[in-house]
Amino acid sequence: MKDCVFCNIGKEEIIIKTKYCVVIPDKYPVSKGHVLVVPKKHYKKITQIPDKELFDIIKTIKLMEKRMLKKLKSEGIDLRQNYRPFIPESRLRKEHIHFHLIPRSFNDLVYKKKGNVERKEISEKEKKWLIGLLG
Amino acid sequence: MKDCVFCNIGKEEIIIKTKYCVVIPDKYPVSKGHVLVVPKKHYKKITQIPDKELFDIIKTIKLMEKRMLKKLKSEGIDLRQNYRPFIPESRLRKEHIHFHLIPRSFNDLVYKKKGNVERKEISEKEKKWLIGLLG
Repeated sequence: MKDCVFCNIGKEEIIIKTKYCVVIPDKYPVSKGHVLVVPKKHYKKITQIPDKELFDIIKTIKLMEKRMLKKLKSEGIDLRQNYRPFIPESRLRKEHIHFHLIPRSFNDLVYKKKGNVERKEISEKEKKWLIGLLG
Repeated sequence: MKDCVFCNIGKEEIIIKTKYCVVIPDKYPVSKGHVLVVPKKHYKKITQIPDKELFDIIKTIKLMEKRMLKKLKSEGIDLRQNYRPFIPESRLRKEHIHFHLIPRSFNDLVYKKKGNVERKEISEKEKKWLIGLLG
């Protein structure tokens, strides 16, 4: 799709790529190391994804969690995928399905701010660091 | 595990059962129709689940989302799986991994209460209704 950010991911953004999906840093991370697992095709919800692509995605989630626990030293990880077609398109709601992997720790900002974390745009430096670390 | 609620799920709680997982109503639903997809074995995190069991789980999530969209008329669905080993065990943190499927809609309580929804125990009547509807 021409106007979809997740259909037009630049090579320099990619942490890893598999047959059916890519992993990229979240542009507005909830916590340090927040990544997205994104199918290459423009699906809107899990029910639209063919089984073999879904297997590839869940294996990629497993692989990324392994790396996040080991290389990022994440104490915990939240997996989230929100299908909310009723929300107007915005920077926080993309139609193209994506799976969040969010590093969590005791007393992190998500707890401190009761979920209302201010999501600042990731810096180029941090993005490169994350791609190097997890790629 | 003897003391684990998810290792000891009663037959009368089960919505559907596959080779490697079961689906049950959440005991303290965030919204009406909130269910859990739970592997039969006592894993703590995604990285511990063998691929073939993980495929079964993601296919079951896909199947349940289909039913929730059709039979529950969910406008949206959130998928969540939280690995937070640093939190003390409580009614809201179970060690045995489980995947939440939470029906969402415009102006639901999660939005109104900014995530701080009071989670009341599901009634027997509502549990039976949900098992009948999605089973």
